[in-house]
Amino acid sequence: MNASIILAHPYEKSFNHAIFHTAENAFKNLNINVYAHDLYKEGFNPVLTTKELGKEKTDNDLVNQYVDEMLQSRILVFIHPNWWGQPPAIMKGYIDRIFRPPYAYDYDENNEGNSGIPKLTGKVGIVFNTGNTEAKREEEVFHDPLENEWIQCVFSFCGIENHYRRLFRVIANSNDIQRKEWLR
Amino acid sequence: MNASIILAHPYEKSFNHAIFHTAENAFKNLNINVYAHDLYKEGFNPVLTTKELGKEKTDNDLVNQYVDEMLQSRILVFIHPNWWGQPPAIMKGYIDRIFRPPYAYDYDENNEGNSGIPKLTGKVGIVFNTGNTEAKREEEVFHDPLENEWIQCVFSFCGIENHYRRLFRVIANSNDIQRKEWLR
Repeated sequence: MNASIILAHPYEKSFNHAIFHTAENAFKNLNINVYAHDLYKEGFNPVLTTKELGKEKTDNDLVNQYVDEMLQSRILVFIHPNWWGQPPAIMKGYIDRIFRPPYAYDYDENNEGNSGIPKLTGKVGIVFNTGNTEAKREEEVFHDPLENEWIQCVFSFCGIENHYRRLFRVIANSNDIQRKEWLR
Repeated sequence: MNASIILAHPYEKSFNHAIFHTAENAFKNLNINVYAHDLYKEGFNPVLTTKELGKEKTDNDLVNQYVDEMLQSRILVFIHPNWWGQPPAIMKGYIDRIFRPPYAYDYDENNEGNSGIPKLTGKVGIVFNTGNTEAKREEEVFHDPLENEWIQCVFSFCGIENHYRRLFRVIANSNDIQRKEWLR
């Protein structure tokens, strides 16, 4: 079995990185083959091109590699902080460029207003987020938008109905004991 | 009076571009000075750097120019398609890199879990989006996440309480007559 782990955080000592390494080791201990990618470290360009607006295959080698690995993975893990109720731009660009037709979903050119045809059915989607907003304020003021964005707009749209998401907070005020417990 | 118009779409004949040019002309006809930026055309890099995680001024000239113009503008206009219930990565990166402390908001380093201090009070925020999802499905399945992302998570957080947003749909099936009416 294969798993992809995609990380988006600029600071290599971030708690996001600690989650990334923990997840990688956990999979390896289960004899699951891991495609682990630190998008910042690999210099991923998140800007979708004009050519990539349709279904045509891109000429960007890194994008094609990520697509191939996503398709080969049973488990897809995404790790990133909550920035403005959305992923960092580099992770948003992973969604824009990798979750493309005809790989992640497909559509009928003659009826584009309709819903897409999901292509990732059977996979498992996992999201780990970090945040600096207290739970009450996150739910009542901002409505925890990442939950809907990932689960409904991305996973369900592509046929991923088996999913898990966890938001760790408040990161800025957390100590080592708390962080170790979270990682466990 | 100054206005900033920020566009994110890769295809120069897109309806987003038509909105962009229409907005620019409308402001000019009102003798409002316009800072108009096509992020794709200007090659904006949306990836926030490690240095930009805090309050320190960036050394990216284009980012500093966008920040200065945003601060000088009474009206901020953002034009982009709905991709996965979020802006394209290049627009998300505009938010990440331009809406930074201490410019768009500020915070107390000793109490990062608290809410930010808004710094854009008195400005007007305007968002024009395009989408290919029918209204009923957009509201009931995806919950039109861009509304909450822009109005609550970005504008209100930064003190912009005077705002307007419009979503044009379904773009893929629209004809010239409909588009001209929308632009009017």
